[in-house]
Amino acid sequence: MTERETYTVVIAGITRHLPLFEVAPGVRIAIFNMLGDTIVVKATAAALAEQLKSTPAEVLVTAEAKGIPLIYEMSALMGLPYIVLRKTYKSYMGDAIKAETVSITTGKPQTLYLDEKDKAFIKNKKAVLVDDVISTGSTLKGMEQVVEQAGGKIVKTAAVFTEGDADWSNVVALANLPVFAE
Amino acid sequence: MTERETYTVVIAGITRHLPLFEVAPGVRIAIFNMLGDTIVVKATAAALAEQLKSTPAEVLVTAEAKGIPLIYEMSALMGLPYIVLRKTYKSYMGDAIKAETVSITTGKPQTLYLDEKDKAFIKNKKAVLVDDVISTGSTLKGMEQVVEQAGGKIVKTAAVFTEGDADWSNVVALANLPVFAE
Repeated sequence: MTERETYTVVIAGITRHLPLFEVAPGVRIAIFNMLGDTIVVKATAAALAEQLKSTPAEVLVTAEAKGIPLIYEMSALMGLPYIVLRKTYKSYMGDAIKAETVSITTGKPQTLYLDEKDKAFIKNKKAVLVDDVISTGSTLKGMEQVVEQAGGKIVKTAAVFTEGDADWSNVVALANLPVFAE
Repeated sequence: MTERETYTVVIAGITRHLPLFEVAPGVRIAIFNMLGDTIVVKATAAALAEQLKSTPAEVLVTAEAKGIPLIYEMSALMGLPYIVLRKTYKSYMGDAIKAETVSITTGKPQTLYLDEKDKAFIKNKKAVLVDDVISTGSTLKGMEQVVEQAGGKIVKTAAVFTEGDADWSNVVALANLPVFAE
């Protein structure tokens, strides 16, 4: 296994050393992957649930896949249903809504799908958007588009990390990750 | 929203009405989607953890994406780490292992990736494969291939449902779903 340079973070009292990967020439980001890290999910879901206590939410929404354990745990703690926007259309999704995004880790366009049962469910509901890391905001914008198109009302956005130096004052987050540019 | 015919199941004491979808001409399957169903995940993860109590497992392994809440909850209950095989390669996965599968819900080939950190982690470890539904066995076979290639030892396979009338005696499952053929 290659030894990689890391960036150390403390979130919800837990320390992790995130490996740095180059995502564009001269640009590196710290990779935060909650899949497989049950302790970090437990801690950060509780911390975000605490910060969202006064938000009048009726449903949580995320996009596949790294944020799924987080939103599941937040759902259990907050007693709220959750919806996962999928990245591949399957026939059982029926009459779905979609939006296009671009991922910072792949640079490729991605499509987000809200399936027909979730589309009916979210209508007129107060939604909190949840993600592991909010970076370029492209996935977030895609989530906003499908939720609004389905008639949901976005009342808050929450993430474990924001990334980069944009204005994140409208996002409930536990910490910020720098982007490492040469 | 379209009204769909359903098939009723009881798993871990919970009743659900699964919509039927046609996946090939004249062939329908009952769609079980745990994403968003926190109560079913809590109940089935506990039931599977109970059935796996005497299995000498060191790590749980699943494939993206519908089984992620299940394996996360089983991980928390069983005190075991878990690994998610991904369906898209991203640069931060480094020197990954891959295997090809075919999904019953799309009929299309899919690739499963085990990233370099998980590859190093699973070596010589006793692994339990976990999925929401085991149907054609194609995803399962792909999971087996990557785990064995990485030097992991598969000690058991567990799923909420098996599907169809193959011999499933080697799988720990809570129930069986019929395949509806005309």
